[in-house]
Amino acid sequence: MQALRIGLIGTGFMGKAHALAWRNVWPVFGHTLGEVPEVELALLCETPLAKASQIGREFGFTRVTDDWKALVNDPEVDVVSITTPNGMHREMATAALLAGKHVWCEKPMALTLEDAGAMRQVAAEAGKATMLGYNYTRNPAHAHACRLVASGAIGRVVQFRGWVDEDYQADPNLPWTWRGTIAQAGLGALGDIGCHLVSLAHGVMGPIASLQADMQTIHETRPMPDGKGVGRVENEDAASALIRFASGAQGSMVMSRSAWGRKSRLGYEVHGTEGMIVYDQERMNELQLYQNRGPVGEQGFKTILTGPAHAPYDRFCPAPGHQIGFNDLKVIEAAEFLRAIAGLEPCWPDFAAGYEIERAIHAMADSARDGGKRIAL
Amino acid sequence: MQALRIGLIGTGFMGKAHALAWRNVWPVFGHTLGEVPEVELALLCETPLAKASQIGREFGFTRVTDDWKALVNDPEVDVVSITTPNGMHREMATAALLAGKHVWCEKPMALTLEDAGAMRQVAAEAGKATMLGYNYTRNPAHAHACRLVASGAIGRVVQFRGWVDEDYQADPNLPWTWRGTIAQAGLGALGDIGCHLVSLAHGVMGPIASLQADMQTIHETRPMPDGKGVGRVENEDAASALIRFASGAQGSMVMSRSAWGRKSRLGYEVHGTEGMIVYDQERMNELQLYQNRGPVGEQGFKTILTGPAHAPYDRFCPAPGHQIGFNDLKVIEAAEFLRAIAGLEPCWPDFAAGYEIERAIHAMADSARDGGKRIAL
Amino acid sequence: MQALRIGLIGTGFMGKAHALAWRNVWPVFGHTLGEVPEVELALLCETPLAKASQIGREFGFTRVTDDWKALVNDPEVDVVSITTPNGMHREMATAALLAGKHVWCEKPMALTLEDAGAMRQVAAEAGKATMLGYNYTRNPAHAHACRLVASGAIGRVVQFRGWVDEDYQADPNLPWTWRGTIAQAGLGALGDIGCHLVSLAHGVMGPIASLQADMQTIHETRPMPDGKGVGRVENEDAASALIRFASGAQGSMVMSRSAWGRKSRLGYEVHGTEGMIVYDQERMNELQLYQNRGPVGEQGFKTILTGPAHAPYDRFCPAPGHQIGFNDLKVIEAAEFLRAIAGLEPCWPDFAAGYEIERAIHAMADSARDGGKRIAL
Amino acid sequence: MQALRIGLIGTGFMGKAHALAWRNVWPVFGHTLGEVPEVELALLCETPLAKASQIGREFGFTRVTDDWKALVNDPEVDVVSITTPNGMHREMATAALLAGKHVWCEKPMALTLEDAGAMRQVAAEAGKATMLGYNYTRNPAHAHACRLVASGAIGRVVQFRGWVDEDYQADPNLPWTWRGTIAQAGLGALGDIGCHLVSLAHGVMGPIASLQADMQTIHETRPMPDGKGVGRVENEDAASALIRFASGAQGSMVMSRSAWGRKSRLGYEVHGTEGMIVYDQERMNELQLYQNRGPVGEQGFKTILTGPAHAPYDRFCPAPGHQIGFNDLKVIEAAEFLRAIAGLEPCWPDFAAGYEIERAIHAMADSARDGGKRIAL
Repeated sequence: MQALRIGLIGTGFMGKAHALAWRNVWPVFGHTLGEVPEVELALLCETPLAKASQIGREFGFTRVTDDWKALVNDPEVDVVSITTPNGMHREMATAALLAGKHVWCEKPMALTLEDAGAMRQVAAEAGKATMLGYNYTRNPAHAHACRLVASGAIGRVVQFRGWVDEDYQADPNLPWTWRGTIAQAGLGALGDIGCHLVSLAHGVMGPIASLQADMQTIHETRPMPDGKGVGRVENEDAASALIRFASGAQGSMVMSRSAWGRKSRLGYEVHGTEGMIVYDQERMNELQLYQNRGPVGEQGFKTILTGPAHAPYDRFCPAPGHQIGFNDLKVIEAAEFLRAIAGLEPCWPDFAAGYEIERAIHAMADSARDGGKRIAL
Repeated sequence: MQALRIGLIGTGFMGKAHALAWRNVWPVFGHTLGEVPEVELALLCETPLAKASQIGREFGFTRVTDDWKALVNDPEVDVVSITTPNGMHREMATAALLAGKHVWCEKPMALTLEDAGAMRQVAAEAGKATMLGYNYTRNPAHAHACRLVASGAIGRVVQFRGWVDEDYQADPNLPWTWRGTIAQAGLGALGDIGCHLVSLAHGVMGPIASLQADMQTIHETRPMPDGKGVGRVENEDAASALIRFASGAQGSMVMSRSAWGRKSRLGYEVHGTEGMIVYDQERMNELQLYQNRGPVGEQGFKTILTGPAHAPYDRFCPAPGHQIGFNDLKVIEAAEFLRAIAGLEPCWPDFAAGYEIERAIHAMADSARDGGKRIAL
Repeated sequence: MQALRIGLIGTGFMGKAHALAWRNVWPVFGHTLGEVPEVELALLCETPLAKASQIGREFGFTRVTDDWKALVNDPEVDVVSITTPNGMHREMATAALLAGKHVWCEKPMALTLEDAGAMRQVAAEAGKATMLGYNYTRNPAHAHACRLVASGAIGRVVQFRGWVDEDYQADPNLPWTWRGTIAQAGLGALGDIGCHLVSLAHGVMGPIASLQADMQTIHETRPMPDGKGVGRVENEDAASALIRFASGAQGSMVMSRSAWGRKSRLGYEVHGTEGMIVYDQERMNELQLYQNRGPVGEQGFKTILTGPAHAPYDRFCPAPGHQIGFNDLKVIEAAEFLRAIAGLEPCWPDFAAGYEIERAIHAMADSARDGGKRIAL
Repeated sequence: MQALRIGLIGTGFMGKAHALAWRNVWPVFGHTLGEVPEVELALLCETPLAKASQIGREFGFTRVTDDWKALVNDPEVDVVSITTPNGMHREMATAALLAGKHVWCEKPMALTLEDAGAMRQVAAEAGKATMLGYNYTRNPAHAHACRLVASGAIGRVVQFRGWVDEDYQADPNLPWTWRGTIAQAGLGALGDIGCHLVSLAHGVMGPIASLQADMQTIHETRPMPDGKGVGRVENEDAASALIRFASGAQGSMVMSRSAWGRKSRLGYEVHGTEGMIVYDQERMNELQLYQNRGPVGEQGFKTILTGPAHAPYDRFCPAPGHQIGFNDLKVIEAAEFLRAIAGLEPCWPDFAAGYEIERAIHAMADSARDGGKRIAL
């Protein structure tokens, strides 16, 4: 079986994470991948070329280029990892799909719902494996929460409370950047981090039926980088939504990119008729579980430390509580993408499912712009 | 100066708390009460009379009665504490006010907004001191949060996230009671606990400008106590709201009386442009504070244990971290009511301010019934 | 049945706590006290007399005095509460016992083991009820831990880890006081707080068989209050011990009065062959329980919030998680002392049991002075 | 510059960790390694050969062998990673050193202090880089604690409280294994996990001057795997020690391999005259810091989430709070070993420093066997 040849576009935060994921997926998952092909770090794209060469050597890529079009059309590339700014996703992903590649694209899918729809369409026609980089859905703690919910461990699910907060835009003195523009960044907190929350909610709650939302630009202007005047921030720093799920459960989602002290606060409570589960990515190796079982005086939230009992933690470490990290989630993602490419089992979210996530966050923005009216999905 | 003679109606959960509060307010606050009159536990009302006698002796009341009308009209009673079921508040409070008594009434104010409005009206005309039992607003941790916010410790306040969850209605097998009826209980989670959240929000955020909400009856029926069939639950087990504050800040409030594992989960996050404060009554002697100060590598949420630096904790204990309890909050409340009675400083919330809290929770219910439309307060 | 007439010596931190305890024991415990006599706040001793009068009125005492000898010999006093500095305990307690009073004395029992032994001797001869003020043993969370251990909830108990830390002597700039002298304060951290830890260990582990210890004066001198020079600190700021219990279990105890940030950090881990319990007074309304039960992937430490299931929490509040406070522990203590006085059930620790606690902390000091040699108790 | 050719012996828990470390050290650390040679996964040793081939392919090794002697003598191997059972460390490490290889050996160093001494001796003569696998010392949270201490952030360091607990030997029903024998396992909890605690203490406290200890075999026998009878456990399940550091500070260390619920509980408190630091590997991406600074009412322990401000976290992720995992610590270790091999800066602990760790844990065992007598190091 021939190895899958990986082409990676981008070497920033997510580019490095993809490189490490591809590099580690076989060493970590090994024989559990079964009939999955091996992978080969074939081609890296970065600009300028000197940087591509330097980093390509460090990451262990065989070849480098500074031309992403060359990469997506390279006959010796089978899979394309896209980790560039969001505004480039549509063009790159569709080009790669049209060139017959499997595509792993970072989230959010695109700047606009229209772009995301176009990507979905091309993917449906191309018949190649696609996946969006919702790495937190791979956290074994979250995966275990999904299993617990599915097994009825907390009874009928009735409420969801989700949050996602970071503070990378909390400081009023941060200079204005493209990140505050609709043209270049699209949505603000909704696009950057809100979509992660939607991706997690899907696993424990199933699809959203309708929602209504409000949003807020906390820092309406920011000082220009050159010190001369201020620039206007066009997109939202924070948003909140009331959600109705298709199951009949209700809930809320709150999010902010300007929440001081929160660094990776992404989590939820799932309320059931027999218990509750609480997850927070800021303590990513823990899961809280309350069950209405046993003597009342001995009931309480259990802090479960993830371990080998929470697959695929065991692939990283045979000892419980030793903890996996952010980059490890990406390795799990790569493994699932490999299985999808090999036709063993579909991965989630592909471009069709990813489009549904985009629909949810854009509906939140639409609702907020329209006085908070309820929008059916 | 003559002592204030206390008449207490009710000896249940809150009745006992009021009795302890009146009994302890002078021993705890002592000379700090200054020119405030002393108090005398004059008259206790409970039924039947034998029970009133037994408990009256234990609580230390001089006299007892089984007739609340006699109590509110007793010439040797100056202050009336009302701790009976919510449906009786209006009649008792107005009678007491009309009889010239100061009135301390438990929350929620009344079953309906109309009743609350009537109470407010009578109070305005009576010119006596009134107070509603929002004991959590007296937590020194919350009071310190209010002071921090007011002093600018976290900059401009931009977001609020509030929650209040308990699990006293979480079990699907709990039998049906009057608590599920609109006629006898009025609102559900909103009235029982949601009003507490609104009371806390006021302290850190100021008034609410508008809101939109959704709500849910999780357990639509409950088994009848006699085992024959089920009864319908008419009011909400859970509600969620999107809030806009008059200040321009936004936020959310979520609440449930069917949230397994939550026993007194009442709290909030206040996001500011320079920091964040997090408070939760389930760890009532703690306050979390994050400030964007000092080296980045040494920033983090501080867990502040309340102590003598957080007045009036010092009245209970001179040592920090030793902790006050739920009943102690009621002692603080009594002290503030005494100061209001003595004309030293107004207490919050009196019946006028309490009516505003009722307006907020009824607006949430109205919005929820009306498809989540935004309602201005 | 005639009421028990209480005489209280002292109105400081602990004096106020005793006053509140006596005042609240009947209102809180009520009918559960059964055939126990009622209590009457008869006589308060403080100096000068004007202060006694002022505070006596606030606390609700009938009479006041500035002469403790008059109090302990007063024929209309049945019970004496002693809350004065430790150096006065022996003289006051023995005088009260010889005058036929029941005696509730604050911890530590005395400055020296010899004094404590004398108190034990007099108590044995007097035949009156005695109790030492180990209030933390009354925490329902700790009491529940004791019940869990006794019921085998964590199997055979094999290890104990205890700690007690505060920071009231952490600041090097605090001026020198009598607290640093052996003549006036006796032991340092061992006497102030270490004895509390020993009292808790007894409940979950039973008696100590032998120990070895080390200790340390962290701040060897302190600035004199008048600013002229420094005074020597003679007793220990911190101590640590290795413990063997009579049961065969082993463990350790660590303590410091100079531990920055710790305000009331008093707790333990109890390791069993089937689980673990963790208690900490700094979160006094919580108990941690781990049991090797159920699926491995769902095991974790449960955070149990105390509630009515943890007697006598229910006497303070019928709702779980609402929390009791430091002063409430003293009310429980008073109730247990009343039951002992009434001959219903003995209370712990009386002067005989309290002497054993003193033996343990003095053995730690002796071992530390003697190079850490093992001392059998 | 020629790449360093890595030979790895073992593919279990730690073997996989070493493989991943070597594989990731350049992709993660990249240009920050500067003049350090690249690495090449040259030769893997495992038995049987088929397993070596399978895993070698997954890990990405060029060649495999089932003969460790061939590996250590292979002229195309520059560095040897030893991850085999502890009893084989001495023979393998000395052979590798004598063959002129750099040696990275897992902890504990050896079964006996004599063996460790021999390894130290050979290393001193060989002049090659050596390192023992104390991965937790590489945690950026701990590294930051060391920097804080060194910078005086908590003043003069006066107390240390260390703990290390796991529960892999907590279940009484676990069958007997070689792990309970002195001949094959050497020390028990001290050797397995106690040495990690000593390694961390060194970073914040400096060298140990003397100690005294107690220890305990909790499960004295275990059922034989064949179900016939029981086997005796010869080494300790738990140990505790009182420590005096060369600096004059005191402290304690407690450890257990039979502590239910603890999965990777390895941490410490460092008490200073101006603050306190608390670290625990079970929440490895957090550090607690208390400083006596600012208003008393706003003091508290800060929970610092590690991020780019805590080098070398930034090499793994540019966003704070996103978290690194257990295996990432090994990558940091590899980077430090590379720097040592390249002569840029020494790594800690080499075999000489590692021997001092062994001395400490063996002294604890010796003290415990000798009635807890104080032993100078």
